[in-house]
Amino acid sequence: MKKFLTASCVSALFLASSAAAADLTQEAQLLKAKALTDSTAWDVLESLTTEIGPRSVGTPGIVRAKDWGLAKLTALGFENVHAEPFTAEAWVRGTESAEVISPFPQKLAILGLGGSAPTPPGGLEAEIVLFKSLQELQAQPPGALKGKIAVITQAMRRTQGPDGYGAGVVPRSIGAAEAAKRGAVAFLVRSISTDDTRLPHTGAMRAAPGIPAAALSVPDAQLLERMATKGRPVRLRLTMTSTVIAEAQSWNVVGEIKGEIHPDEVIVVGGHLDSWDPGTGAIDDASGIAIATAAAHLAGTTGGRPARTLRVVMWGSEEQGGSGEAYALAHRDEAPKIILAGESDLGGDEIWRARLPKGAWALPAMQAFATILPELKVVLSREPANEGGSDVEGLKAAGAPVVDFDQDASRYFDLHHSADDTLDKVDPKKLAQNVAVWAAFLRVTANSDVDFRKSAVAP
Amino acid sequence: MKKFLTASCVSALFLASSAAAADLTQEAQLLKAKALTDSTAWDVLESLTTEIGPRSVGTPGIVRAKDWGLAKLTALGFENVHAEPFTAEAWVRGTESAEVISPFPQKLAILGLGGSAPTPPGGLEAEIVLFKSLQELQAQPPGALKGKIAVITQAMRRTQGPDGYGAGVVPRSIGAAEAAKRGAVAFLVRSISTDDTRLPHTGAMRAAPGIPAAALSVPDAQLLERMATKGRPVRLRLTMTSTVIAEAQSWNVVGEIKGEIHPDEVIVVGGHLDSWDPGTGAIDDASGIAIATAAAHLAGTTGGRPARTLRVVMWGSEEQGGSGEAYALAHRDEAPKIILAGESDLGGDEIWRARLPKGAWALPAMQAFATILPELKVVLSREPANEGGSDVEGLKAAGAPVVDFDQDASRYFDLHHSADDTLDKVDPKKLAQNVAVWAAFLRVTANSDVDFRKSAVAP
Repeated sequence: MKKFLTASCVSALFLASSAAAADLTQEAQLLKAKALTDSTAWDVLESLTTEIGPRSVGTPGIVRAKDWGLAKLTALGFENVHAEPFTAEAWVRGTESAEVISPFPQKLAILGLGGSAPTPPGGLEAEIVLFKSLQELQAQPPGALKGKIAVITQAMRRTQGPDGYGAGVVPRSIGAAEAAKRGAVAFLVRSISTDDTRLPHTGAMRAAPGIPAAALSVPDAQLLERMATKGRPVRLRLTMTSTVIAEAQSWNVVGEIKGEIHPDEVIVVGGHLDSWDPGTGAIDDASGIAIATAAAHLAGTTGGRPARTLRVVMWGSEEQGGSGEAYALAHRDEAPKIILAGESDLGGDEIWRARLPKGAWALPAMQAFATILPELKVVLSREPANEGGSDVEGLKAAGAPVVDFDQDASRYFDLHHSADDTLDKVDPKKLAQNVAVWAAFLRVTANSDVDFRKSAVAP
Repeated sequence: MKKFLTASCVSALFLASSAAAADLTQEAQLLKAKALTDSTAWDVLESLTTEIGPRSVGTPGIVRAKDWGLAKLTALGFENVHAEPFTAEAWVRGTESAEVISPFPQKLAILGLGGSAPTPPGGLEAEIVLFKSLQELQAQPPGALKGKIAVITQAMRRTQGPDGYGAGVVPRSIGAAEAAKRGAVAFLVRSISTDDTRLPHTGAMRAAPGIPAAALSVPDAQLLERMATKGRPVRLRLTMTSTVIAEAQSWNVVGEIKGEIHPDEVIVVGGHLDSWDPGTGAIDDASGIAIATAAAHLAGTTGGRPARTLRVVMWGSEEQGGSGEAYALAHRDEAPKIILAGESDLGGDEIWRARLPKGAWALPAMQAFATILPELKVVLSREPANEGGSDVEGLKAAGAPVVDFDQDASRYFDLHHSADDTLDKVDPKKLAQNVAVWAAFLRVTANSDVDFRKSAVAP
């Protein structure tokens, strides 16, 4: 009897599990099909880039973006729509110009880096010293760059993953500080970019270097390299203004679809609402906002209310930092109930690889989700997710599992942080592929009892 | 005897002609081979874009460019190097900005068109009226655009030849004047461009329209189109300054390689030295300067001095007009001795078709030249040359035969008249293909007795 019962229980469990997996597979397939023909993501993306445009913290754009986010989530039927305020330090661009004054007078296309110091009011004039890499600059002894403008012309590599940027961004992050240590009066870096347009690409520095720092467009960096080969000192005039707001207001904008069965178990997904100022922030990160919002909307409204809660967060200060930290701090008590956290923040090009929390690839629910992947040209990796996105770093540190849906980044750095980050660069079909992956994943995760914290010990 | 002599003469002429054709074939082949490995064109292009950069008439750049041209031609061994001064009206850009002020505040990327009026000192604010084509605007009655900013968002087609531009440029050429006639206070046109970067493309208008006129970048034109669909009036603020110099100084810079046998028979070839201001004028037209200079240099120095004179002209005001007219006027007495005139002015991409003066394709000398074309992927057309380049219009009107070596223009209008017109956009191999065609053609023409004025009646 016991034996019979046991066998019966195992069988029942097996059947339940199979049935659940079959249901989840069906739900995943349904979400995928729906997402591929749904226009919500494109509509959100179009609206944010057209009606708001640039939205740096410290500018009116972020205030308008917050109001836009509240209205958009409400219109889409999200519940508990609200903005969670926080403050962050903001660097705000003023006017900027650069020109070669001798021996070959020409204007240069530059864009100040976040955290740059202003020049003296009338600008500064100095000779350049060129370095082909950060290492070359770092090999200079203290004082070697006294009174000079240090220029790094290192190129970044084009890669499918973010590795090209990971390596390439270091001169922008710390080059100015390294130059300042050696006495430089200003710093210029070749844009961290894979394109060849004359639009510079901005971005933040790890810490304010105390000197003016700007990115040159790629052709301008090449121009300075050529001028420097002609055997005469190259002198520039640089004029930059900027302001720093120590406690600029921003908001994490939130909307939920409450779970039917386990409303306190929360899946957090989002993108970041703020953007750098030169473009309209279409790929960085209106696309992420659009993907996360559309995916949660579809996953929360297709086939009835989900078992667990789906929460969209539009983080309000990714570029200059602060929104992920503020969110994790505000939600530290809730962290144990956060089933999963993820951020879409690498544009709108296709997902090519899915990395789940450690071991989770083998879970029946995740195998059900994975049935949609081959047709979408996504590989399910056995490598565990280890990023999640910069705004979920804080949640991850608090123990929340994360997911990485790796997007094709090979075109992303042509556009990133430049004036070219505009709506026309996003392909609606590729955007929909992202939504399909996220929507199916969110629905399956919300309607199963997977516990990613335990999946490391799963088969 | 008479009969014998006649037959002998015919035979001798035939042999001479064959021998000459064989020699010319050999010369054409030699020039082609030499040009494909010669770096003169690239060096000239690199020097002009790096050491001078932008060089609009009315700015110090054109003065420096003139001095550069004299020095470069002298260094390359040209004779009779000199500058022929003339004056032309010049429009000089000041500061420019545009922004949407309601309902969706955003900055716009614009570039004033040559001939634009300035705005009032504090700028102007007005509502836009969008037109998808010039025809739509022209269908408006007088007064219909009173107080408005007229915007044309017509796109240009990408074509191998210049036809896409020929049709596409009309809204830029006359749109502002048409808008002004109907009461518009300003005019914006989608850049006449095939690219999607956020860099606008400038250019001249047929006549000063009396109102401010500027080009929007392609993404900005699309942005206004999207804003206009949202059912609320779109208001812009436009601020533009500029100056007009009625008699700006410029120069046609000239160098020759004197003919050994017929020094008074002259082949004129060149490009234009001036450029629009946002880029470094690499494709427009440092490439043409480089191709013509290198081709004449090679044709004039390979295998001894040529029979006829080769003359390079760097025309000094193509973009805003005047250099071709000044040249034709100064050389009207010489016109009958000008064997041929040609200008390279469509960038540095490959020549795909050669069009010679009417009927000339069949001349033995031209058939000798044509032996190099298949390997260079150039077709010898039986259609006659009918353009020659805008700086040789005047010579053509005075009876000088012209040649058209049609370049692949399919990428040209991605870059043309924008900040993206920089050296890195030119492929040295494609540039060398141009030099090979021109150098072989110049040598064959200089060392034969072809008279293109008579070739229309040749077999």
